[in-house]
Amino acid sequence: MIAVDWGTSQLRAYRIDDTGAVTAQRRAAEGATACRGRHAEVLRACIGDWDDGLVMLCGMVGSRNGWREVPYVDCPAGVDELAAALQPCDTPELPGRRLWCVPGMADRSGAGDAMRGEETQVLALLERLGRGRHVVCLPGTHSKWVEADDGRIVSIATAMTGEVFDLLRRHGTLAELVPAGAGRTGTDTGSAETEVFDRGLHDSAADGGLLHHLFGARAHVLFDSLPAERLSDYLSGLLIGHEVRSLLPMSVRTGGMTAHLIGNAALLDAYARALAASGIATQRHSERLAADGLSLLARHRDLS
Amino acid sequence: MIAVDWGTSQLRAYRIDDTGAVTAQRRAAEGATACRGRHAEVLRACIGDWDDGLVMLCGMVGSRNGWREVPYVDCPAGVDELAAALQPCDTPELPGRRLWCVPGMADRSGAGDAMRGEETQVLALLERLGRGRHVVCLPGTHSKWVEADDGRIVSIATAMTGEVFDLLRRHGTLAELVPAGAGRTGTDTGSAETEVFDRGLHDSAADGGLLHHLFGARAHVLFDSLPAERLSDYLSGLLIGHEVRSLLPMSVRTGGMTAHLIGNAALLDAYARALAASGIATQRHSERLAADGLSLLARHRDLS
Repeated sequence: MIAVDWGTSQLRAYRIDDTGAVTAQRRAAEGATACRGRHAEVLRACIGDWDDGLVMLCGMVGSRNGWREVPYVDCPAGVDELAAALQPCDTPELPGRRLWCVPGMADRSGAGDAMRGEETQVLALLERLGRGRHVVCLPGTHSKWVEADDGRIVSIATAMTGEVFDLLRRHGTLAELVPAGAGRTGTDTGSAETEVFDRGLHDSAADGGLLHHLFGARAHVLFDSLPAERLSDYLSGLLIGHEVRSLLPMSVRTGGMTAHLIGNAALLDAYARALAASGIATQRHSERLAADGLSLLARHRDLS
Repeated sequence: MIAVDWGTSQLRAYRIDDTGAVTAQRRAAEGATACRGRHAEVLRACIGDWDDGLVMLCGMVGSRNGWREVPYVDCPAGVDELAAALQPCDTPELPGRRLWCVPGMADRSGAGDAMRGEETQVLALLERLGRGRHVVCLPGTHSKWVEADDGRIVSIATAMTGEVFDLLRRHGTLAELVPAGAGRTGTDTGSAETEVFDRGLHDSAADGGLLHHLFGARAHVLFDSLPAERLSDYLSGLLIGHEVRSLLPMSVRTGGMTAHLIGNAALLDAYARALAASGIATQRHSERLAADGLSLLARHRDLS
């Protein structure tokens, strides 16, 4: 079978053999919400020479602005509910392929929350971790905090951390302070970067709130206590510190639980550092869990 | 004398007679940090036909990126310290004029904080209010919260509320949700706007932090519980709610003090509403206090 994790910024395709092992992997820089009207064409260009019939899709490809809208499945839900809600998406443009798309998940408590793609990674992780209570953080443009209990996802909370970081680095008075070509994030491995990232983390715990702390970043540069070319590292620590402090579930904070992190290595370094500063142990997992999750859902629905 | 409040986005000039009354007033849309090398020219175009010798300046015109950098005066300080630190800025480009620029003020506690221009408005207000403890909020792109004791400014805290609001309305995933031409802020007087602004205020008190609440705004639209054209009003309530909750000094919260607001009418409506929701009484004052503050400083230094 072929597993396709198709998010906002890129498409990742995995070829999976009968034992569930990934035998090949490809990427395309075409986001699911940016290639309207060309989804079949983009998919054919990426996997056209893989002759497997079954193609499992997850991610923003199933959103209102993606290819086919697949309604959300509400929390709490696990592999049973998600497998039952898989939606067939066959199209004459891709003859001989059986296409199935995974629904996103919604949490209707509070203001409401949702995710598309992350649920598939989390399901694969839960299969490995076994029963019990688990907390998973998937850092990114929109960081997801997911709580699970006995294999079912029970809550979702999203923070716009990565997006706010990008907005501040690209527009407005903080962006104007940063010299062109200065370091990008707090995830570089140099000691100066790490030191400034930690300072941002530390300052995020002070009184006054995020909107005040952002001006504090400006004041640091104005008063020459922070080199302007390190402002991004400081902001990264400040924002991730705010996110972790606000969204880390109480069960992890007080119960000595491990927080599971899924994402790219550089970003996980930063989050593991922020969590360690709060005394929380972490375990890291690759985004390739999406392939395992799609394979799991296909088996559960007897598609493969 | 002539009083000039020259900030980041505009210049406001007041002609003041010997009794301290404003007899004429002009504006120019030339910000102090945007007209480098042309300050004398812009000033002459605005006040050239007013033949007073003394020209008092305050605001970003005295910043590193303004006309002449005037070093900050540190907190605590009042009219004595600020009058003593006035800096002569005469230039051959404006013959016959005696130019004096008011320093900004810095608060070196914590990450540090600073203001330029607001100190002059606050001094004029303190002159009216008399001795005792007072709290002043000056909402804007960078909102200032100032505490004063017996005529001296003792602390400054800034929130980047207006700037973050603008960034979110103009760039990124929230901006994409707003239809072109939709209502701008939560300060409109219509009841639908006010209702949505209040909902943002209310939601700002929930758990999860600002970065999570911003995604909540998106979720509200996604789940059809908020019309996309009202998203700006919701964001305005959410951000102002966060600012007020984080920066409102404990003395006001618990001591039944009045919070004094200085700024334009629409913005003050929104802040008064947010403070009222926290049970805080407010009193509103016009930005024209800058003219009174400049006049006060000139008299104190025996310049007029």
